[in-house]
Amino acid sequence: MRVAILGGTGDIGEGLALRWGADTDHAVVVGSRDPEKATAAATDYRDRLADRGHEATVESAANGVAAADADVVILAVPPYHVGDTVETVADDLPEDAVLVSPATGMKRDEDGFHYHRPGAGSVTRVAVDAAPDDIPVVGCFHNLAAGRLADLDADLGVDTLVVADDDAARETVTDLAESIEGLRALDAGPIANAAEIESLTPLLINLAMNNAGLHDLGVRFD
Amino acid sequence: MRVAILGGTGDIGEGLALRWGADTDHAVVVGSRDPEKATAAATDYRDRLADRGHEATVESAANGVAAADADVVILAVPPYHVGDTVETVADDLPEDAVLVSPATGMKRDEDGFHYHRPGAGSVTRVAVDAAPDDIPVVGCFHNLAAGRLADLDADLGVDTLVVADDDAARETVTDLAESIEGLRALDAGPIANAAEIESLTPLLINLAMNNAGLHDLGVRFD
Repeated sequence: MRVAILGGTGDIGEGLALRWGADTDHAVVVGSRDPEKATAAATDYRDRLADRGHEATVESAANGVAAADADVVILAVPPYHVGDTVETVADDLPEDAVLVSPATGMKRDEDGFHYHRPGAGSVTRVAVDAAPDDIPVVGCFHNLAAGRLADLDADLGVDTLVVADDDAARETVTDLAESIEGLRALDAGPIANAAEIESLTPLLINLAMNNAGLHDLGVRFD
Repeated sequence: MRVAILGGTGDIGEGLALRWGADTDHAVVVGSRDPEKATAAATDYRDRLADRGHEATVESAANGVAAADADVVILAVPPYHVGDTVETVADDLPEDAVLVSPATGMKRDEDGFHYHRPGAGSVTRVAVDAAPDDIPVVGCFHNLAAGRLADLDADLGVDTLVVADDDAARETVTDLAESIEGLRALDAGPIANAAEIESLTPLLINLAMNNAGLHDLGVRFD
């Protein structure tokens, strides 16, 4: 499988690229608005994977080029760039591509982090609204601690939650998520259920800030 | 410690009463708007505890009477009754009482369950707004599966999240929560962070509905 990570130079993109590079044979393409940044990041990820004995395929490209021949396109960009990123690459997407939205809107005040729900209902819904009608969007990878994901010495042992309105796309992304060792993907229903998943990310940060020993925490449902 | 559970005939009240009866020496008072219903429930809980060899103190009373000499008062009522329940018992509360809000607002549609955020910001905040100024409110016990809580054969091994603006009250409720075997209480910060915790309850229900084997699930942060 060929996975494009748009915004792949950011911290969640870094973690996903390293995990797929270490645990799978998927080809990863690090996308960025700035192709030079993408190349620098891909080289870094490849070197770190090679140091651990993984000969991973990690390429780089501008976002549109990265998306153009990908099976799955991860929108690993800040929430306020999700809509415009989808619009930028919309014409380049292969007809059977699947978009994945991991972003969540947050605001911080003196009490902690809070979910900043977009008018559309969720960030995942923003991606749906911006995507071409025939390209399915799946919400996934919202609640992963980026530092733990990027630390290949760290066991994950956590869950990620999947929302989708298209069953085949849900299955593709569920398999892609579970190809990462220690990551279990659970079905949280349709896109309409995304807001409660996105809300969990600020909660995780609040818990990390308020409890000694809960750094880079994840969530597990049992 | 003396714990009044207002709405103690409901399913979350049942689970808490049984757990405190089994695991602690706390005196539990089952409160209800209908004292006869409270008596029937308390008798049932006491009998079930006795069958397992626990001689628990489980009393019953109308809500106002139950609250009148309690150290901690649990508002185990539906979210739309939180405000009026607090107002009903406000004049009866001992001056050093602590109120605990476990309720969450939800609505259901064809997609699943969704968080129904009250205008006040959270159900916990509704309790704060209704409570006398000198009575602290703590949010806790939001995300517990009632069936699992009430099944004393079931291991919990789950977390509950605590929000409070009063440090002493937070500590009291944290200790009370952790007096239940297998329940870990984590600090989620001030009351302002309650909405993200309440949002987790509909998410848990969506996960239980959509994933085989995840019945009565709880959450664990690690």
